Amino acid sequence: MSHINSSTKGVFVIAVTPFNEDGSLDNASVDRMVDFYYEKGADGLTILGMMGEAPKLTQAESIEVARQTIKRSGDKPVVVGVSAPGLAAIGELTKAVMDLGAAGVMVAPPSSLKTDEQIIGYYRNVVETVGTDVPVVLQDFPLSTGVQISSKTLGTILEAHPSIVMVKHEDWPGLQKITDLRQAEANGRRRTSILCGNAGVFLTEELQRGADGAMTGFPYPEMMVGVCRLSQEGRFDDAQDLFDAYLPLMRYEQQPGLGLAVRKYILMKRGAIASAAQRRPGTALSRLATAEVEKLMERQTKKLELLN
Amino acid sequence: MSHINSSTKGVFVIAVTPFNEDGSLDNASVDRMVDFYYEKGADGLTILGMMGEAPKLTQAESIEVARQTIKRSGDKPVVVGVSAPGLAAIGELTKAVMDLGAAGVMVAPPSSLKTDEQIIGYYRNVVETVGTDVPVVLQDFPLSTGVQISSKTLGTILEAHPSIVMVKHEDWPGLQKITDLRQAEANGRRRTSILCGNAGVFLTEELQRGADGAMTGFPYPEMMVGVCRLSQEGRFDDAQDLFDAYLPLMRYEQQPGLGLAVRKYILMKRGAIASAAQRRPGTALSRLATAEVEKLMERQTKKLELLN
Amino acid sequence: MSHINSSTKGVFVIAVTPFNEDGSLDNASVDRMVDFYYEKGADGLTILGMMGEAPKLTQAESIEVARQTIKRSGDKPVVVGVSAPGLAAIGELTKAVMDLGAAGVMVAPPSSLKTDEQIIGYYRNVVETVGTDVPVVLQDFPLSTGVQISSKTLGTILEAHPSIVMVKHEDWPGLQKITDLRQAEANGRRRTSILCGNAGVFLTEELQRGADGAMTGFPYPEMMVGVCRLSQEGRFDDAQDLFDAYLPLMRYEQQPGLGLAVRKYILMKRGAIASAAQRRPGTALSRLATAEVEKLMERQTKKLELLN
Amino acid sequence: MSHINSSTKGVFVIAVTPFNEDGSLDNASVDRMVDFYYEKGADGLTILGMMGEAPKLTQAESIEVARQTIKRSGDKPVVVGVSAPGLAAIGELTKAVMDLGAAGVMVAPPSSLKTDEQIIGYYRNVVETVGTDVPVVLQDFPLSTGVQISSKTLGTILEAHPSIVMVKHEDWPGLQKITDLRQAEANGRRRTSILCGNAGVFLTEELQRGADGAMTGFPYPEMMVGVCRLSQEGRFDDAQDLFDAYLPLMRYEQQPGLGLAVRKYILMKRGAIASAAQRRPGTALSRLATAEVEKLMERQTKKLELLN
Repeated sequence: MSHINSSTKGVFVIAVTPFNEDGSLDNASVDRMVDFYYEKGADGLTILGMMGEAPKLTQAESIEVARQTIKRSGDKPVVVGVSAPGLAAIGELTKAVMDLGAAGVMVAPPSSLKTDEQIIGYYRNVVETVGTDVPVVLQDFPLSTGVQISSKTLGTILEAHPSIVMVKHEDWPGLQKITDLRQAEANGRRRTSILCGNAGVFLTEELQRGADGAMTGFPYPEMMVGVCRLSQEGRFDDAQDLFDAYLPLMRYEQQPGLGLAVRKYILMKRGAIASAAQRRPGTALSRLATAEVEKLMERQTKKLELLN
Repeated sequence: MSHINSSTKGVFVIAVTPFNEDGSLDNASVDRMVDFYYEKGADGLTILGMMGEAPKLTQAESIEVARQTIKRSGDKPVVVGVSAPGLAAIGELTKAVMDLGAAGVMVAPPSSLKTDEQIIGYYRNVVETVGTDVPVVLQDFPLSTGVQISSKTLGTILEAHPSIVMVKHEDWPGLQKITDLRQAEANGRRRTSILCGNAGVFLTEELQRGADGAMTGFPYPEMMVGVCRLSQEGRFDDAQDLFDAYLPLMRYEQQPGLGLAVRKYILMKRGAIASAAQRRPGTALSRLATAEVEKLMERQTKKLELLN
Repeated sequence: MSHINSSTKGVFVIAVTPFNEDGSLDNASVDRMVDFYYEKGADGLTILGMMGEAPKLTQAESIEVARQTIKRSGDKPVVVGVSAPGLAAIGELTKAVMDLGAAGVMVAPPSSLKTDEQIIGYYRNVVETVGTDVPVVLQDFPLSTGVQISSKTLGTILEAHPSIVMVKHEDWPGLQKITDLRQAEANGRRRTSILCGNAGVFLTEELQRGADGAMTGFPYPEMMVGVCRLSQEGRFDDAQDLFDAYLPLMRYEQQPGLGLAVRKYILMKRGAIASAAQRRPGTALSRLATAEVEKLMERQTKKLELLN
Repeated sequence: MSHINSSTKGVFVIAVTPFNEDGSLDNASVDRMVDFYYEKGADGLTILGMMGEAPKLTQAESIEVARQTIKRSGDKPVVVGVSAPGLAAIGELTKAVMDLGAAGVMVAPPSSLKTDEQIIGYYRNVVETVGTDVPVVLQDFPLSTGVQISSKTLGTILEAHPSIVMVKHEDWPGLQKITDLRQAEANGRRRTSILCGNAGVFLTEELQRGADGAMTGFPYPEMMVGVCRLSQEGRFDDAQDLFDAYLPLMRYEQQPGLGLAVRKYILMKRGAIASAAQRRPGTALSRLATAEVEKLMERQTKKLELLN
């Protein structure tokens, strides 16, 4: 399998981790889900991210999930989240998954980082730990990590470490940061791939600002694929029309904490996984919330019919 | 002017504070803006909230804005935000604005509160400070304050203080909290008015969960008015259709920090205020962001034409 | 009264604000307390700081306290804390107290600041707001504000704004920061006065690292005065002996929140103020805590007798 | 080896993890250090805590350290820190170390917990995960975790889970919490062991408030042992005299982040470990800081001579 690099484009779906109702890993669903994502047009996958319930897995389970996903993905690239409280665990998991054929690893900053110097120092340690031959995705998600990385500090990190080939962009508000990164490149900084998260809620603007695609887990990957394709063709209004049809559900799915329950419910309904179960502790979907999701799915289907 | 109470319903617009380009108060625009909000159907106003740049005003300016807004509002209710680092300032401003005819005051918890007991104690102090005859709105906005109030703790506060007649609901995710509050009332707790914030992004679901209306500053108050009216008539699908037409712009306007620049820009374009200027420190709208907003406004107009 | 400047040395006591049991300002005690601080050797005072219960005062009360303290201080310098959520209030209070004869103003960063750029931008706004002719003390107290300012960022701010003449140093750990600042000055940066807070708990080391004195409210100013004098004379062991005699109580008084109750209790016992009352909300000293403080005071007296 | 229980008393030293200069585990020093702690009077050890650099170890290394420490400790109890981002890892490590003969496990709350209900729910999940037959130590250290647990919430947790037999108390200020816990027991709640951390800085008062001993890593365990023994004999003044002799260094060693460098330096100087090296990322002791520590050690020696 080939590595990601600073030119990587497209849609990398943030994969969930399928569990059985009893909380054990649902290996059968892993294959089904991987197939589902690629059938819907994904260019690659990202596993063991925050929305992949990674912290709830043991190290052995993490490696098991990585092995199966990478194998089933064939020659499609799989990025693996390796964020951990310490460098030793990051190094250990990185080595394991790169040996299994991962396309790169993703690292979010720990919430203990306070100053720009600490953030810069942290990524220097990460790169030294995993080795400069391993492509790294820097996950920039302040709403979740509490670590705010300014465009300037992000630039300092990217200039110091060519092996950080990609930014998973999910700052909010964050459109200006994409513009800042692309302007710095226009002024001479090396190129970095930018794939956007945040449940896809700003995907149309992000692409026009210069992002290379999406890296998020909205359970309709075909939306992201379609919006990316239409945007690349310069058909921005069509892209926005497609986006708008999904937006009411995207908005609902973006709710912190609750969002994963929505995501897994929809993936189950779409046949991608057998159960919407989350490993403990997880937020369940109430009866009312389920009805709201059903209603939004129904309305979405009608809107898409009108579009075609 | 009458006070708000635990049965208050409808749309209270979170008003901006109009400034001239040099940062001085734009008194002429205050009247124009107040008229604009009521022409669009607002049932009342809320001034000096976070999005009203209240912390940037001196106490004297705050009172000046309150006096003018209350006077121009005639018999329409005006809630005044009085959040401050200390109780003395809260008490002083409350007395001043209630004497001017305010309908009630709104208080958000300071970010220093950590435990449930501290939160409960804080609102006891607030009620003792302003007096039990002053209707209080509890602003529940953890994304901004950092203070997470559970449904249970919120219930404890509401049971202890009948003068807290309203919750400005903007927890995220927060739909379950509305359901929790209404269920507790079904089980015997006194009624509380619930008006929803968060830029209106969950207004349709919130109303179906039992909210009494909206209290937010989205610069198209007619959307909130329409969604509330249609929901009240049981025309939920029509309400959602109307909501969906505005959602792409709502989503854009909800961006923390940047949102106020979007809001003021649109209000200026709609003729409600003379200038989009914010008092320092403020986030400006870049050229690209302005173009994005313009595009979304244009598309919104077309969608609304299709609806009618 | 003269202004503080970048060469200011000595002990500036962080003054409490005396209240009557009913929470009203105790004006009689203000004079008594000011006299007490100077009798114990203080070189100046700092009022309306966090430990001065400043956020609990109305703007009018703040000005009243400043007027009385400045008047009673004669030609001794009085620094006034003017931290507030917004620049307008900072500007208004600064103008008022400088007109009354304050020696400078102190500003802590608001907890909303996240990145180095935001911190740097904040102090630029502060200096523009108060005017470059007003001497500013930058209060660096991350434990309380949550804002971590690195030595590098602090340097950037100091280089940009010569009117920031003093750092109230209370980072923890923070000894290296003093060394960093002094080294930068040795390499050409303009001098800044450094007075240390943190209840005095590191005063001996701070002075040897290059600090100019203390700015804290430990209720035995004579300790700080003595330690500064002995250190200046190069009698570091004697300074440490004196310091050690007070340390058990200093440690107890340094407890966040509770510390102010200890401080006011001791000041009351020493006759500096009439009542240990804090304005609401305040932490009271329990019976057990009072006994602990009494015991520590008693032991301290014995140790000091042994020293002499 | 026997388990800890709700009557456990004495001094459990928070052990460091010895590393070689190259960052590898220094197994030879583990034995030497274990012997050192017991020679100085420790009743037991706690390993893999925050100051044991636990997050920097891989799971395999953690188990290796636990195996060696437990073996070398003979029949002395060893508590193992098992805090981790997810329950699966907590469960896995707990099973491994209890099988090796650990006396119990210690769990701190993750910083993501916001409300009392979340904190209560978390410890319910922990107890269900590790099993009710495993003695659990609840680590209450808000300065580090950011999670503030009120006395009331702590009581709710203790009442629900008899297998939480011990509180590692290091709230600050925290003396009242010890009193609250003991008063609740006087009123009928089951007994819980309370061992105190916070570098020992309040040990004398803590013991008088009802604590059962110390659980901290100050590199002179004999101080804690002596203070506990003297306090138990009712010789409180002698206990305080002994404490005071160590306080200047304790204060210095308590500095967050830097403290571990001080601790390891002193342990190295005392011959307990071969190197003061920390695994990356770690804070080094500067030349000036080293001199300050040396000076404090020297003065401490003299004070102890005067005591005897």
